[in-house]
Amino acid sequence: MSASTELKAESAERADTLARVRVVLVETSHPGNVGSAARAMKTMGLHDLVIVAPRLAAPHEDAQAIALASGATDVLATTRIVPTLADALNDIHFAVGFTARKRELTHAHVSLREAAGMAITELETSSDVRAALGTQTSARVALVFGNEAMCLSNDDVDRCQLLASVPANPVYSSLNLAQTVQVACYEMMMAANAFAVAPDAPRKLATAGDIEALMQHLERAAIAAQFLDPQSPKRFSTRMRRLFTRARMEPEEVAILRGLLAAFENSAKDR
Amino acid sequence: MSASTELKAESAERADTLARVRVVLVETSHPGNVGSAARAMKTMGLHDLVIVAPRLAAPHEDAQAIALASGATDVLATTRIVPTLADALNDIHFAVGFTARKRELTHAHVSLREAAGMAITELETSSDVRAALGTQTSARVALVFGNEAMCLSNDDVDRCQLLASVPANPVYSSLNLAQTVQVACYEMMMAANAFAVAPDAPRKLATAGDIEALMQHLERAAIAAQFLDPQSPKRFSTRMRRLFTRARMEPEEVAILRGLLAAFENSAKDR
Repeated sequence: MSASTELKAESAERADTLARVRVVLVETSHPGNVGSAARAMKTMGLHDLVIVAPRLAAPHEDAQAIALASGATDVLATTRIVPTLADALNDIHFAVGFTARKRELTHAHVSLREAAGMAITELETSSDVRAALGTQTSARVALVFGNEAMCLSNDDVDRCQLLASVPANPVYSSLNLAQTVQVACYEMMMAANAFAVAPDAPRKLATAGDIEALMQHLERAAIAAQFLDPQSPKRFSTRMRRLFTRARMEPEEVAILRGLLAAFENSAKDR
Repeated sequence: MSASTELKAESAERADTLARVRVVLVETSHPGNVGSAARAMKTMGLHDLVIVAPRLAAPHEDAQAIALASGATDVLATTRIVPTLADALNDIHFAVGFTARKRELTHAHVSLREAAGMAITELETSSDVRAALGTQTSARVALVFGNEAMCLSNDDVDRCQLLASVPANPVYSSLNLAQTVQVACYEMMMAANAFAVAPDAPRKLATAGDIEALMQHLERAAIAAQFLDPQSPKRFSTRMRRLFTRARMEPEEVAILRGLLAAFENSAKDR
C-alpha cells in the first residue's frame, strides 16, 4: 500500500469514526439553535442529529433553522424527532451528557476534552475489535444536550455513562446551546484527529551565505556613512546579525535590503 | 504559603494572562455577531474587545448585540471602535490572524490549538521575565478575525505575527464568525489552563468485602431457587463478580440488591 493510499484509508477510517457520533438535543425550544447546531456539526464532520420532544413539532423544518444551518441543510434533512431520550439512545453504546452545573450524583464528571478523548477511544477500540473479529458491530456514541437552560433532568442523566462540562468562567459560565454544541463537536473532531490544517507550503529561505553577504554589505555601507566605527563594530553587527537570523529571511527580502544599501552608497558618491 | 493560598495566586495569575488577550473584529457587519462574540469571550475569561471600521458606527450599542451578549454586556460597555487594524494593534506584541483559507504567504500558518499554545507562551514568558526584572512590562496578544466572509485583507495579514485556522471539514468548513470566536476563546482558556472543571466529589464506594457478601448471598439465593448448581457454580459466579466489580458499586446499591435477594428467599419460603 502506497503512503498516499494508506493516508486515504486512514482518513476514511477517521470519517467513519465521526459518522458514528450522534448529537441529541433534548426539548430544544428555538429552531435557530437547531440550525446552528447542524452547521456546527457539519463543519466538524458530524451528521447524525436527533431531537427529543421539541417544543415545536418539527423545528428542523422551520425557516429560521434552515437559514442558520446555512450549507448544512443536509443534516436537517436527515434529522429525526423522537418522543423520549430512551428512543434517541436505543442503538447507542456510550452516551455523554452535557451539564453546566456540578451534580451530586454517582456519575463520573469530566471536562469536555477528557470526555471527547474517552468517547473517541470507545469508537476506535470498537473498530479495532471489529476488524479483528471480522464482525460488523461498531460502537455508537451520543453527545446529549439539554434545552436552552442547559438542563438535563435526573432521569436523562441516568441514561448517560458519563457527564461532561465545558470549563468556563466561574462568574459567567453561560455558553449558549449552539456554542456548546460547536465546542463539543470541535473537541470530538480534534480527538479523532479528523481534519488537519494543511502543512505550510515550503517557504523559500535565504541561506546563511546570503545573510553573511548582506551583513558585509551593511557594514561596508554603515562605515561609508560614518555610522559605524570599523575599529569597534561589535554591538551593531551582533544585533543586526541576530535580527536577520531570527527573522528567517527570504532571498527576495535580502535582495531588497541590498538594493537599498546600494542606493545609499550611490547617492553618497553623487554628492 | 498554604496550598490554598498558592492555588488562589496561581488562578489570579492565569486570569491576568487572559486579561491581556484582545479580540479584534475587522469590518464586522452584523451587530448580532458582536454580541455573540462578547458572550463567547466572557464565558472563557476574556474581556478586551476592539472593532475595526464596522459597517454600523456602534454595533456594540445595537439592541441585537445587547440581546445576544446576554450577561456579557460589560464587555460591550468597554468595547472600543477604531478606524484601522494598526490602531487596534498599537500596544500589541503578538497578533494571530484567523483565516479559513490557506494563503501563499510568508506567514507561519498553524492550527488553532498550536496558535493558542504559542500565544499563551508569549504571555506567560513575558510574565516570568517581568517578575524576574521587577518591571511592569507585560506582553499583549490579539486574536484578529475578519468579517463574516472570514476574510482578512493581505494588508491586515501583514500586521500579524502568525496565521491560524480552525481545522474543519474540507467539504464544509464554514464556521460562522461567532462560532469561530467561541472556539478560539475556548482554546485560549484551555491553553492558559484557566478554569478547571471541579473534581468529582468523592463517591462512597462499596468495599471488596461488601461485594463478597453480596456474592455469597446471591449464590445462596440462586441455589435455593434451583437456578445454580452448587457443583458447578463457575461461570455464573465469575460473570456476576466481574460485573459488580467493574461497576464500582455503592454501598446503597449493594444493600438494595441484598434486600431484593432476601425478598426472593422469603417469598420462596412462604409458598
